[in-house]
Amino acid sequence: MRIIIVGFGVVGQSFVKILLSKSAELYSTFGLNPRVVACVDSNGMAISQDGLDLGRLLEAKRMNKSVLAYHEKTICLNTSDLIENTEAEVMIEATPTNLENGEPGISHIVSAMKSKKHVITVNKGPLALAFASLLELSNYNNVRLAFSGTVGGGTPILEFAKKCLRGDRILSFRGILNGTTNYILSKMEEEGFTFQEALADAKQAGYAEASPKLDIEGYDAAAKLVIMANWIMSRKVSIGDVPRLGISDVNLNMIRNAHNNGKAIRLIAYCDTDELNVMPLEIQRDDPICVTGTLNAVTFSCEYSGEKTIVGRGAGGLETASAILRDLIEIRESISNPFD
Amino acid sequence: MRIIIVGFGVVGQSFVKILLSKSAELYSTFGLNPRVVACVDSNGMAISQDGLDLGRLLEAKRMNKSVLAYHEKTICLNTSDLIENTEAEVMIEATPTNLENGEPGISHIVSAMKSKKHVITVNKGPLALAFASLLELSNYNNVRLAFSGTVGGGTPILEFAKKCLRGDRILSFRGILNGTTNYILSKMEEEGFTFQEALADAKQAGYAEASPKLDIEGYDAAAKLVIMANWIMSRKVSIGDVPRLGISDVNLNMIRNAHNNGKAIRLIAYCDTDELNVMPLEIQRDDPICVTGTLNAVTFSCEYSGEKTIVGRGAGGLETASAILRDLIEIRESISNPFD
Repeated sequence: MRIIIVGFGVVGQSFVKILLSKSAELYSTFGLNPRVVACVDSNGMAISQDGLDLGRLLEAKRMNKSVLAYHEKTICLNTSDLIENTEAEVMIEATPTNLENGEPGISHIVSAMKSKKHVITVNKGPLALAFASLLELSNYNNVRLAFSGTVGGGTPILEFAKKCLRGDRILSFRGILNGTTNYILSKMEEEGFTFQEALADAKQAGYAEASPKLDIEGYDAAAKLVIMANWIMSRKVSIGDVPRLGISDVNLNMIRNAHNNGKAIRLIAYCDTDELNVMPLEIQRDDPICVTGTLNAVTFSCEYSGEKTIVGRGAGGLETASAILRDLIEIRESISNPFD
Repeated sequence: MRIIIVGFGVVGQSFVKILLSKSAELYSTFGLNPRVVACVDSNGMAISQDGLDLGRLLEAKRMNKSVLAYHEKTICLNTSDLIENTEAEVMIEATPTNLENGEPGISHIVSAMKSKKHVITVNKGPLALAFASLLELSNYNNVRLAFSGTVGGGTPILEFAKKCLRGDRILSFRGILNGTTNYILSKMEEEGFTFQEALADAKQAGYAEASPKLDIEGYDAAAKLVIMANWIMSRKVSIGDVPRLGISDVNLNMIRNAHNNGKAIRLIAYCDTDELNVMPLEIQRDDPICVTGTLNAVTFSCEYSGEKTIVGRGAGGLETASAILRDLIEIRESISNPFD
């Protein structure tokens, strides 16, 4: 199976490391023989129709901060041209999330689908803005659009809803979809930090970015909520449809009041057939979604089997890379020739 | 699809109620057109090759405490003979769990498999005692052995491990597999009840049976642990292989000491490639498996994607019946002729 990787940050590199360490097992268990035929990062690209040497690729990235150093000569190609004109079965889209216009992710995905390549994206932007049209394009071109890693990192929240609750009906779900804000709220409660102190602590611990607006203001949670609402509840919504309130106005008094009533404040994303929103809410401390630190948690309410909760880390390079591998195995199994 | 139901208590009746209320949807979504051709309870049986009238069947059970009243004349057949000689695709085994010798469940399952019927069991006894040989028999006869409802009630713990973590490796798991003991331990902690008071409370609330030894002494948790160990970790073990300690010696002092250290005492089932046991342990209060009341919770530790927890009610008629339906849909999809 020939793969193009577009975006080669922590997640992309972790995925290549897994391929390196598990190749024999992937072939024997799943008939999966992946060849990375092209890899693109923000500085350049490496290409080989026979498959790139993955050890050398990681080394080029490590030593020179770009896959550009893989070749002696520099290859200058537009990324969309590369995607369209390289023979491959799968394109992995792992560029940074852009919630303004979804680019360059949307263009990469469209290029891949038009040239009949299956797509695995861990980039939330394209789906948060254009879920329905991208899914339609994938159906039209008879390719798969897989996106396990966009919600929950390595925690299989989307698969759980789709594969483990069949025959039952999900009436609603609610959960914590952003680890950074959960870390901040936990620290405020446990250590008595103010919001600003907790934010500084999160930055120092590497859980918040220099400009953490996407997390703090609830955009990241809203993007994941939109993906879940479309996929699980068949709602045709995009990120602009989500009423959203961030956590920057949560203060220590509110947190202490909640604590004294056996509750905690968490940034909760909610969806049913009508409602859809992201906002800080008081929840019971013994509610299974009341997790601490950077954990994510989602409770699904089902018609027959009641409430079920899934909890796990919502980020991390290796974790998210494991979601890419799950998607790749699914695509492998949906393609007819099993030992390609 | 023709179905024999053996054992018609709360779970069996709930399953029939779901069939009654969802028949149109089951056909349109899954191509599933179930006909219950025989139903057996401890007092007798009802049989119809055209399919029993499910409303009348429930009414007979409700009015006369047995399906016996469905017919005017009493049918006297040995249950194993009935299973072997009735034409059907699936036998659902829902008789009470017996952890001494697995009967009559084992005989029912063997009869079904020998006559080429797929088996769905919610009875833990046969699997806790003879998992490997029953799985071998199902392979030999080319039928499926499905048992989603034996662990976690309606919470899809087994499916989660098998379907949602592919490409990763489960290194170990630990969890709370018995709701009754968790209710008792929660009550001792929250209300300051002694063990005996909490047990009496659990009996009154309907969460503990008159002779609650199977729960209190950890046998029920051990039976579920054995099913998970065989299925998820490929360990060839039965209930006699599980070192087991119940909760009857847990006292209020231990619980208060744990509480003062930010911990709680829970009855924990654990499995990795070497170890296997059930015992009361102190766990951190913010551990996602530290659930309260009758909830169950299991954390899987994976090679790449770290720890993931699933939480839900571990019992209940409708919940467990929803697990039977999941199994039935899977079997339906594995049979070639889709609109049978």
